[in-house]
Amino acid sequence: MPSPKDVYIAVIGAGGVGKCFLAQLEVLSARLSKTSSTKLSLIYVSRSKTVLYSPQYTALPFTDLTTKLADSKQELLSLPKIVDYLAAAPSKVILVDNTSSQDVADTYPAVLKKGISIVTPNKKAFSGSYQLWEEIFAAARESGAKVYHESSVGAGLPVISTLKELVDTGDEVTKIEGVFSGTMSFLFNSFAPTEGKGGKWSEEVKNAKDLGYTEPDPRDDLNGLDVARKLTILARLSGLSVESPTSFPVQSLIPKELESVGSGEEFMQRLPEFDSQMEETKTAAEKEGKVVRFVGSIDIAKKEVKVGLEKFDPSHPIAALKGSDNIISFYTKRYVSPLIIQGAGAGGDLTAMGVTGDLIKILERLS
Amino acid sequence: MPSPKDVYIAVIGAGGVGKCFLAQLEVLSARLSKTSSTKLSLIYVSRSKTVLYSPQYTALPFTDLTTKLADSKQELLSLPKIVDYLAAAPSKVILVDNTSSQDVADTYPAVLKKGISIVTPNKKAFSGSYQLWEEIFAAARESGAKVYHESSVGAGLPVISTLKELVDTGDEVTKIEGVFSGTMSFLFNSFAPTEGKGGKWSEEVKNAKDLGYTEPDPRDDLNGLDVARKLTILARLSGLSVESPTSFPVQSLIPKELESVGSGEEFMQRLPEFDSQMEETKTAAEKEGKVVRFVGSIDIAKKEVKVGLEKFDPSHPIAALKGSDNIISFYTKRYVSPLIIQGAGAGGDLTAMGVTGDLIKILERLS
Repeated sequence: MPSPKDVYIAVIGAGGVGKCFLAQLEVLSARLSKTSSTKLSLIYVSRSKTVLYSPQYTALPFTDLTTKLADSKQELLSLPKIVDYLAAAPSKVILVDNTSSQDVADTYPAVLKKGISIVTPNKKAFSGSYQLWEEIFAAARESGAKVYHESSVGAGLPVISTLKELVDTGDEVTKIEGVFSGTMSFLFNSFAPTEGKGGKWSEEVKNAKDLGYTEPDPRDDLNGLDVARKLTILARLSGLSVESPTSFPVQSLIPKELESVGSGEEFMQRLPEFDSQMEETKTAAEKEGKVVRFVGSIDIAKKEVKVGLEKFDPSHPIAALKGSDNIISFYTKRYVSPLIIQGAGAGGDLTAMGVTGDLIKILERLS
Repeated sequence: MPSPKDVYIAVIGAGGVGKCFLAQLEVLSARLSKTSSTKLSLIYVSRSKTVLYSPQYTALPFTDLTTKLADSKQELLSLPKIVDYLAAAPSKVILVDNTSSQDVADTYPAVLKKGISIVTPNKKAFSGSYQLWEEIFAAARESGAKVYHESSVGAGLPVISTLKELVDTGDEVTKIEGVFSGTMSFLFNSFAPTEGKGGKWSEEVKNAKDLGYTEPDPRDDLNGLDVARKLTILARLSGLSVESPTSFPVQSLIPKELESVGSGEEFMQRLPEFDSQMEETKTAAEKEGKVVRFVGSIDIAKKEVKVGLEKFDPSHPIAALKGSDNIISFYTKRYVSPLIIQGAGAGGDLTAMGVTGDLIKILERLS
């Protein structure tokens, strides 16, 4: 019989994804205590302005956790203090970073060096500078701590684990292509549907915004940077030393003239002035019997990464996508016809699911 | 730093999948010896009539392995003797069963009880009697040994790992549906294409057989049992206590009159007599603007598993499948629009890839 295993969990970020994760953690913790010798103890949880933690490393109860966290008067810990606190814990620790903070990401090497494992959907750590990427994985190799980030691409979809398995089993990935943004998926499935006629571009953006499919300022989706970050991660996992998400061509859908307008509101007001640009792109595709989609692609042999508009036959899986689904196609030496993964690639519960899945994988690997 | 780790590997079956696996194992073994403290030693490999093993548990060299195995004069070991031999090894052992043998599958509980982990694409162990299923997982729980069988469904496609993660992270799987046979996929994509007109049923079967897409006797594909076995595995992983692959409705595409003809050749000769039956099914679907496909589905709430012909709109992902690809759709509480995995689901190298992937997962989990 395996011996009893105490594992401490620290959670930074208890907002959208964080709240969903804490709910999943409560269920997982209860299940493990019944079915295994693993005992999970939540010892630290913080939001931007409040923190709840146990100086004596006793488990925080899940009951009313988010309320207690909101009302907590405990003094905030700086990131170095958090690392010290976790490193002094009397058993293994897993840090769950549910933020999208660059500052937290920058501490990963220090965290990992202390033997503390990390689970996170935070793209910043893996799509920032290549130096940070190398420091993170060097620190993990050195200490044996794990760092898993499945939900940094496609939320709960098994994208990163599949790519890793292709590489680890000796397959040769030649190309990765797909729709990596739920927002872009929704926009283009409405704007240039395979059947029927879509509306004007600015109307579709407004509609998507009203339905909550975009960031509060839609330019944060339309600039393509979110997709570029995901591509950076997948390219690096495929063996390309991509320097940063701005070191390859990324097509922004923000008209030049609107890049510097002050507010998202003003942007939305003026967007209709530029509808003719997107209409031309759509019509040009239609003349070839195609539809236009916003895709990212990595050609591994050519070491080419790019993000932007491409034309597809209506029967192509990328064109046939529905709603706000993501689709990721892996072309490899073994998979000549691609291995395709498709489904919702965003949302609190689905992102948290990727985090919880990674947490389980690390628990299984902790000796 | 993690401590050095010796792991012994025993391989039963060195045919189609087995040969591909041994090639992947050689690469993996070389990589691990360079990049980690894990040392893999192949100590046993057998085919139906020959065996090569090391009584002193020294590693067999990979050079000319299959030739040496074919020429080996070592005496075959009975299954109980193999278990004794592996149980006496001075370090952890992983048994890789690349056969489709029921006899080997039946020894899994005994193997696992000895703390020996198992990796296999062998469907028999997991789709036979429910009692064997329970014995296998009880033995694994008891000893802490692992038993992974990703490639028992969809070869290298991440089907089982995805289903397990959905369940383990607390999602509620409501329905699983898909095309689980490369042969059936190829047959129906040709017989009832979404564009153009397919040939006669018997001609398509002959063509698929000539191209090597069917078993030597195509009835072994057309009876639906292979799909029923895969459905049994997925249903059980979803929590349904399916008794056997014959305990739910499975539609056989073998005309009643041809079930008992002696040979595959005779079957193929007489199949054209029954073309009108399949033609009627196809035409009936076409009248509704649909195409017919051979699918398996599991309705978890209703506890219904079934395998057979269904009609789909041409735009449905199942209808739009190409070549001999598999497609598996998971409908869950979180994934209302399904999580879809698609790609080649058979072949030596792809099946071996699932096996190698599982082996890596177990290596990471061995303490």
